[in-house]
Amino acid sequence: MPENLIRRILADHLREGELTPGEEIVLDVDQVLIEDATGSMCALQFEALGVDRVAVSPSVLYVDHNVLQVDGRNMDEHRYLQTFAARYGLHFSRPGNGISHYVHLERFARPGALLLGADSHSTMSGAVGMVAFGAGGLDVAVAMAGHGVATAAPAVVNVELRGELPPWVAAKDVILELLRRHGVRGGQGRAYEFTGPGAAALSVLERGSICNMITELGALAAVFPADGQVRSWLRAQGREDDFADVAAEDDATYDEHEVIELGDLEPLIACPSSPGSVVPVREVAGTEVVQVCVGSSVNSSYEDLAIVGAVLRDEIVHPAIEMTVTPGSRQILDRVARGGVYAELVAAGARMLEPVCGPCIGVGQAPSAGRPSVRTFNRNFPGRSGTAGDQVYLCSPPTAAATALHGVITDPRDLGEVPSFDPPPTDPRRVDDQILRPRPDDEAAQVEVVRGPNIVPPPAGAQVPDRLADPVLIVVGDDVSTGDMAPDGMGMSDWSNIPECARSMFARQDPGFHDRALAREHGVIVGGHNYGQGSSREQAAQAALYLGARAVIAAGFARIHRANLIAQGIVPLEFVDAEDHGRAETDQTWTIEGLRDAVEAGIEELTASTDVGEVRLRLRLAPRERATLLAGGTIARLRSESVSRA
Amino acid sequence: MPENLIRRILADHLREGELTPGEEIVLDVDQVLIEDATGSMCALQFEALGVDRVAVSPSVLYVDHNVLQVDGRNMDEHRYLQTFAARYGLHFSRPGNGISHYVHLERFARPGALLLGADSHSTMSGAVGMVAFGAGGLDVAVAMAGHGVATAAPAVVNVELRGELPPWVAAKDVILELLRRHGVRGGQGRAYEFTGPGAAALSVLERGSICNMITELGALAAVFPADGQVRSWLRAQGREDDFADVAAEDDATYDEHEVIELGDLEPLIACPSSPGSVVPVREVAGTEVVQVCVGSSVNSSYEDLAIVGAVLRDEIVHPAIEMTVTPGSRQILDRVARGGVYAELVAAGARMLEPVCGPCIGVGQAPSAGRPSVRTFNRNFPGRSGTAGDQVYLCSPPTAAATALHGVITDPRDLGEVPSFDPPPTDPRRVDDQILRPRPDDEAAQVEVVRGPNIVPPPAGAQVPDRLADPVLIVVGDDVSTGDMAPDGMGMSDWSNIPECARSMFARQDPGFHDRALAREHGVIVGGHNYGQGSSREQAAQAALYLGARAVIAAGFARIHRANLIAQGIVPLEFVDAEDHGRAETDQTWTIEGLRDAVEAGIEELTASTDVGEVRLRLRLAPRERATLLAGGTIARLRSESVSRA
Repeated sequence: MPENLIRRILADHLREGELTPGEEIVLDVDQVLIEDATGSMCALQFEALGVDRVAVSPSVLYVDHNVLQVDGRNMDEHRYLQTFAARYGLHFSRPGNGISHYVHLERFARPGALLLGADSHSTMSGAVGMVAFGAGGLDVAVAMAGHGVATAAPAVVNVELRGELPPWVAAKDVILELLRRHGVRGGQGRAYEFTGPGAAALSVLERGSICNMITELGALAAVFPADGQVRSWLRAQGREDDFADVAAEDDATYDEHEVIELGDLEPLIACPSSPGSVVPVREVAGTEVVQVCVGSSVNSSYEDLAIVGAVLRDEIVHPAIEMTVTPGSRQILDRVARGGVYAELVAAGARMLEPVCGPCIGVGQAPSAGRPSVRTFNRNFPGRSGTAGDQVYLCSPPTAAATALHGVITDPRDLGEVPSFDPPPTDPRRVDDQILRPRPDDEAAQVEVVRGPNIVPPPAGAQVPDRLADPVLIVVGDDVSTGDMAPDGMGMSDWSNIPECARSMFARQDPGFHDRALAREHGVIVGGHNYGQGSSREQAAQAALYLGARAVIAAGFARIHRANLIAQGIVPLEFVDAEDHGRAETDQTWTIEGLRDAVEAGIEELTASTDVGEVRLRLRLAPRERATLLAGGTIARLRSESVSRA
Repeated sequence: MPENLIRRILADHLREGELTPGEEIVLDVDQVLIEDATGSMCALQFEALGVDRVAVSPSVLYVDHNVLQVDGRNMDEHRYLQTFAARYGLHFSRPGNGISHYVHLERFARPGALLLGADSHSTMSGAVGMVAFGAGGLDVAVAMAGHGVATAAPAVVNVELRGELPPWVAAKDVILELLRRHGVRGGQGRAYEFTGPGAAALSVLERGSICNMITELGALAAVFPADGQVRSWLRAQGREDDFADVAAEDDATYDEHEVIELGDLEPLIACPSSPGSVVPVREVAGTEVVQVCVGSSVNSSYEDLAIVGAVLRDEIVHPAIEMTVTPGSRQILDRVARGGVYAELVAAGARMLEPVCGPCIGVGQAPSAGRPSVRTFNRNFPGRSGTAGDQVYLCSPPTAAATALHGVITDPRDLGEVPSFDPPPTDPRRVDDQILRPRPDDEAAQVEVVRGPNIVPPPAGAQVPDRLADPVLIVVGDDVSTGDMAPDGMGMSDWSNIPECARSMFARQDPGFHDRALAREHGVIVGGHNYGQGSSREQAAQAALYLGARAVIAAGFARIHRANLIAQGIVPLEFVDAEDHGRAETDQTWTIEGLRDAVEAGIEELTASTDVGEVRLRLRLAPRERATLLAGGTIARLRSESVSRA
């Protein structure tokens, strides 16, 4: 059968397993992306593996998350990461150099390659025809040590983009349309390959916005073809040599197929508080807004900012609105500053922020509680903005600009003609590479890795008990995100310190959870569908580990979080009958006889005896996952494998 | 006697009293400056006065402090201030529009006028030949209501600047030289008038740096002559009509006189942790540094940033250093962005921050504990950076740039030739005025003032007891700043909520202070010399009020804080013999018989009976201060006066 592009790239990188959807495969990794929020823990675990240099080049460490620095912890972390990078051979992107996903697209992403990122939005680099996806920090540390990465092979979905985008409709509306159709779980187990004339017409950064947010569907990755747009992009980046003519074979087959008629799209908006709550902008037009934020790891390109500048040209942001604009990278900042866009935005009264993640991850610019904030970001999970009870909408830059002008949510088509703007100034300065370059090998050994007091080695993995007889620590509902387990925003300063970080676990659902769980020796967590959606932060699993969880029983798991649980030695069990979720209550005792035997033997059906009767559970584990659980987590497994090899 | 410029301006504004140094005078106020940190409390107290519109125009409210917004409190505050401004007729400068002192110089400051600011660095506007000084928020609210402002008449010091600045020596080094000579108390009771050829050669913004930091000497104000430099400045701002030819009379006399030979100056630096700990840069050259910050309410001008850009041209900031650059205003941001300076700084790896106070007030960019941070700011009080145990140095932009390049504190003269830079682009856009304009009178009455949950009316003033017999709540040493009483940095989010704010009072000196004080009904605080130096924040006095303080007994008081104590009904007493400070201990009972009678009768000598014997105290109060204390604070006094008038 003629192969699609995603399967071709995966096949090129296949180290173990077969490309059957759902089956575990191990892939070679060409590039690694780490950011500072997940990065310190990733680095600490890499150090625990006892490797002398990174085995993957480029491995790039971007400081773009914890950069507000309201106390000394952030800078301590930056110093740890900078010296870690120098010691072990990573590229280091300083704070202010740009948002990882933009800088990676600009300076590193290349067709046909495979990128593993310790950030769920690492998918963005799929815009140049590579397979790029996120994983927990430990999986990334393992990959950096040369072990490749294990994941389930995805089903490949072909999304055919027909026609062309109408005026005022943006690439952002394409991904919002997919979220409208499928919701935040609809992409689980899938990777998306975009084709058709509508795909060919999109610029690399427009493709990037779509690829970035494919993770909101729960998908593994999204890929666009490596076509002329990609070649031009790489040429403009001075990297035409990185171009490779990788493509799907003619008449390639796919597991699924769907069509988006671009001409039928209209401006869309995701309502509070899920990226999947998408409606046409006109349905919520007129809603009073207190804040508009443009930029983030999506919609921070020159063109994204330029259309906003053009809409606001000679106008002033509505007085009741605070508006922020974030460029995606130092390169984009340079271009908007040297062109007229920056001056337009400044004159309109927008607040020009650094090229860092910022408000997108709740690090600054938190809105008033209960008051709508309209953002071009990728996520609006409850409280992610930094404000409990926030009301965050997600939309395209044109919709955001129209809203900033009028003070209420506004369909940009009401503005009339689309204003024009100048292309970016040519002669982009090569501001990134000199700054990014890693320390040469011969100097690296002399580097002292500096650890501040808040850089705390993580807890050792859990042991799967022969018989589990544990109290239910908490019962949570559907679509609980990792943001509810390890804090977004300013709390990320403690992501390198699991005992501190764990204080926030489920605080929104139950402020008493932390103390109660800590008082029990062990326990199980009960969740609903799509448990652990969102960010790749492994701290979500490590906090559960620290608080004594030995198993999570859920109606279903988000991909990365499930892997992170296993990596820490925590058993992920699924309800056979999702309705049983409703029978679970805090402080019940759930008993599973022979749990360790089941893991060892690959038994998939188990029964929990509970205060409310028997509950049937499913335990589907790939062989490597079973080995990991039996070893007590990934680090223990790799350590024992290296001992047995010696 | 021929009059100097300061006395001429004061005489022009004299409403009550005589211009005898130390005597209380009441002055008419032409302009008011408020920022958001002190502003919400100022606004709440203005509302308590029951006035319908501000009586001073322009009164300008700048949001430049609490703008990181790590939760919803900051934006709630912005919304309160924006609607307050619209309701009562203030100009409103949005977040991101610029640092108050820069925007005020650009758009409002004018020769011969009198500015009162709810910010200690309001002195900066003295650069155009006006008298500008800071006061507590309540004093500013009272002035906005049309009552003028009471202060002690200053002695006027003539500082004659002779010769010219050598290469690499900056205006910042002039004010550091004054701090080196006189320390942080040397300017108390004084106002400084700069004259001579060296003064004439300084630009308005260079003068601004000097005037801004005059407050670090404890002085009331600093004034430069309204000369050709000022006329050019106003012309470039499109405000030549605001120029007035005010000057000292020929052969004017002064209370004191001193000379600075500019040609003898070298680059200077204030060492941790006082602006008064000034040494030549060469004495600490070679010290390893982790952070360099350029900008703040001093040294954020186009020229300040341009020299840094020129030093870093085609270079990269040392890898061990994080560097931030803050432009002073939207106008400056526009110029550096449209000229080449912004691109130079971006290319060098500097983090370009918004034109807000930011790291200068510990709102972001806190350094690692114990690691040197070199800053062009005006204050380096312990912990002000946001980091307990910080090591902050203060210097000029050239010294900061040289340090950023080399990674260690560096005398810029080691760099060789001073590099040149382009002048700012002409045709500055008038970005400020349309944004700043207040709501017309006829619309204002309809404005609803929005109060978020953290906007809490302040406690009522204290009552002076007939007999004080109170426990000593704490004994603190010399030069304790208001930052130790009401928190800098992120804690400023609670400056509109005194019970929350009071939790931080003296936490650095004694973490148990808050709970202990709260457990007592009343008490006295014992301080050393220069008690309450630094910021004008009246929350420092209100926190003491809330915690039950009825008197503060100190070796000496900083001007603004002393006024703030009286405004809240707290009696400021001085030790006759400063050595008696050493006899005071926490939990002693200090008894003062006839305290209220003494205030009423103007008795200046009092005796406290204490566990360690008698202590002689001095109580020097101006008549208005006595009336304020007897009424139970300023608001109560003004209310009773308005009743007695009716």
